[in-house]
Amino acid sequence: MKFPSARHGEFARLRGLIAGLPEGEGVLVGPGDDAAVMRPSPDHDLVVTTDTFVEGRHYRTDLLSPEAVGRRLAAANLSDLAAMAARPRWATIACTVPPRGDEGIPRVIELACAAALAEQGAAVVGGNLSAGDGPSVWTVTLIGEVAKNRWWSREGARPGDVLATTGHPGRSGAAIALALWHSPPSLEHVPPELFAAYARPECRVEAALAMAALGVVRAAIDISDGLAADLAHLCEASGVGAQLREELLPADEPLLDAARLLAGNLTRERADIIPAPEQGLAEHLRFGSSDDYELLMAIDPARVQEARYAAANAGAALHVIGVCTESASERTILRRDGRQEPLPSRGYDHFA
Amino acid sequence: MKFPSARHGEFARLRGLIAGLPEGEGVLVGPGDDAAVMRPSPDHDLVVTTDTFVEGRHYRTDLLSPEAVGRRLAAANLSDLAAMAARPRWATIACTVPPRGDEGIPRVIELACAAALAEQGAAVVGGNLSAGDGPSVWTVTLIGEVAKNRWWSREGARPGDVLATTGHPGRSGAAIALALWHSPPSLEHVPPELFAAYARPECRVEAALAMAALGVVRAAIDISDGLAADLAHLCEASGVGAQLREELLPADEPLLDAARLLAGNLTRERADIIPAPEQGLAEHLRFGSSDDYELLMAIDPARVQEARYAAANAGAALHVIGVCTESASERTILRRDGRQEPLPSRGYDHFA
Repeated sequence: MKFPSARHGEFARLRGLIAGLPEGEGVLVGPGDDAAVMRPSPDHDLVVTTDTFVEGRHYRTDLLSPEAVGRRLAAANLSDLAAMAARPRWATIACTVPPRGDEGIPRVIELACAAALAEQGAAVVGGNLSAGDGPSVWTVTLIGEVAKNRWWSREGARPGDVLATTGHPGRSGAAIALALWHSPPSLEHVPPELFAAYARPECRVEAALAMAALGVVRAAIDISDGLAADLAHLCEASGVGAQLREELLPADEPLLDAARLLAGNLTRERADIIPAPEQGLAEHLRFGSSDDYELLMAIDPARVQEARYAAANAGAALHVIGVCTESASERTILRRDGRQEPLPSRGYDHFA
Repeated sequence: MKFPSARHGEFARLRGLIAGLPEGEGVLVGPGDDAAVMRPSPDHDLVVTTDTFVEGRHYRTDLLSPEAVGRRLAAANLSDLAAMAARPRWATIACTVPPRGDEGIPRVIELACAAALAEQGAAVVGGNLSAGDGPSVWTVTLIGEVAKNRWWSREGARPGDVLATTGHPGRSGAAIALALWHSPPSLEHVPPELFAAYARPECRVEAALAMAALGVVRAAIDISDGLAADLAHLCEASGVGAQLREELLPADEPLLDAARLLAGNLTRERADIIPAPEQGLAEHLRFGSSDDYELLMAIDPARVQEARYAAANAGAALHVIGVCTESASERTILRRDGRQEPLPSRGYDHFA
C-alpha cells in the first residue's frame, strides 16, 4: 500500500480519491502510510472477505450509474459478512483503471462504495490505485468482527431445520433480463421494485446481527450465485438435503410481471438470453443466477417466529421456503398438487 | 468471497488454485465459505495493506517467471508490513485473468505468492477469481499483527536521528535497466546480485521485528518508490529534513558495474530509458525509482549499533546513510569534498 511521489499526478489523484471518506472507529493509522493500523475489539474473531468487480462483466456502465456500481461493490462484500453474522469494520479498495480515462467515474464509484460501507459501520482504511489498459477492475477487501465462536457458516444445518430467505430472490436478475431485452439495453423501463433490487440492493447486515443475537441460525449463505446454486452449497457443506414447498414461496408480483413480459416477447432470437419455457420463467428468475445480496438460512424450527420478528425489526422480511432433509442429495420442490420435482437451477460461470 | 457452482469450470478452477496452500495458525474458517474467520492475538493491533500488480506494468512475463511474479507480489505486501513492524498473519488473493488464458500461469503465480507469504507466517484464507479481457490483475490484501501501540509509521523521526537502510537500494531498478537495454529485453545477462534483487527480493520482516523488539526505530517506510522519493515521504510525515553523506553510502560494485555498462553504451536512442548523465548514473539507480523492497528507518542515534546487530542477526545488512535535520525542506547529500547538493530523485508514476 503505497502512495507514489507527491510531485506526480498519481499522488494527487489518489489523495483526491481518499479525501472526504469518513474516519473509522478503531482506526489508529488510516490511509497514507505503508499500511493501516486498527484496534480490534477484545473477545472477537475477525472475518474477512474479498470481492472483485470487472467492468463489462460485473457491471455495465451503460446500465448502471457510477454511484450504483459503487453501492453494489460495497453490497457484494457486506453481504458476505452478513452471511457470517459479522459486523463490518474496515475495508481496503484497490482499483485498476485506464491511465488516460475519465477521473470522475472511478472517484464516484470509490466514494459511493465507501459511503455504502460507512452506512454499515465500515471505514476505508487504505487502498491502491493502478493503471491498466483493460477494463476497470475493483477489488474490495472487507474486515469485520464477530463475538468469539459466534460466526455463522455454511456448515451446521440439520435435518428438520427450516430454510428461509430474506427479501425476494430473483429480482436483481429479472431487472437485468428486462434491461437486456431492450435494444439498446436499458434499465429505464424496468419496474421500480426490480430496479431497486439491482441498482440499490438492501443490506442484510443489521438483520443478520439481530438474528445472530438470538442464536437461532444454524447455517447461512448469501445467494449471490442464485438461490438454487447457493442452497446446494449450504446443503453440501452441512451434509443435508432440501425440500422447498411451492405454497410457501412468497408472492412476487413484480417478478411475475417481468416473467410474463419476457415470456410474451420471447422469440427464437432471444432464446439465448432466456432459455426457459414460458411457464417456468418466473421460477428460473427466482432460483437461477441473479446477483441478489439476500441471505439463505437454516433455522432452528422451534424458533422461526423469533427470527422473523428480529429480521423484521431490522428491516428485512424473512420468508420460510422449505426444510432441510436427511437425504443429502435431495434438492426438490413440493408442488401445490403434491408432485415432487427437482429444483430448477442455473448458475453463472465466468469461465464456462 | 464466493465460489461459484460446483457444476461449472470456475469452481473446479478455483479449487485447483487453492488446493495445496498451507493452513494458517488462528484460521477458524478458511477458503470455501462466504468469508474467512480468524482468531486475533490478545493485546495486539491489526495492520492491513493491499497491493495490486497489473501484467505489463508491474511485471512482464517476458522477463520474469510466474514463480518470480508470485514472489514479488508477496514481497510488495510483506514489505509494507515490515515497514510497520507487523508480523504477517493472513492474506487474500484476488486475481482477474483472461477467460480463455493458460490456467497454469495464474496457478503458479498464486501458489508462489502463497508460498512466499507462508515463509513469513501468513496464510491465504480466501480470494476471488474473475475473468477479465484486459491484462491480468492481482490484488493481495495482507493482514498482520503488532503488539498494542508498538507499530512503526512514517511519523516520529526527530532531528538528529540516524537514517539507515537495509540492503542495497537500486539493485532491482538496475536489473530492469540492464534487461531493457537488451534487445529483446532479457534478464539473462544481468549480474546475479542484481537479478536476485529483482526476481527474488529479500524479505525484511524478520529484521523489522528484531529491531522493533529493541524500541530503537522512530520512523520507517519501505522504499518501493525509490530511496529519494520515500525518504521525502518519511521526512514530510515526520516534519524533518534529511542530509545524506556520500562517504557513508555502502559500496555496491554490482550497481557500479551496471552503471558503467549502461553509461558506456548510452546513445541518443537510449536516452529515454536512462536520461541521467554518465557520472550520475549510479546515483540515479541508487536513489531513483527501483522497485526494491528494502526499509528506510530513522533510528535513535544512541542505539544504532544495537539496531545493526539485531538486523544482521535476522539476515539484513543495515547501512547508515545520513541524519535527520531541523530544516524540514532539506533533502541534501554531503559530498566527500564538502559540497552540499540536492539529492537526485525520480519516481515512477503510472498516470504521468
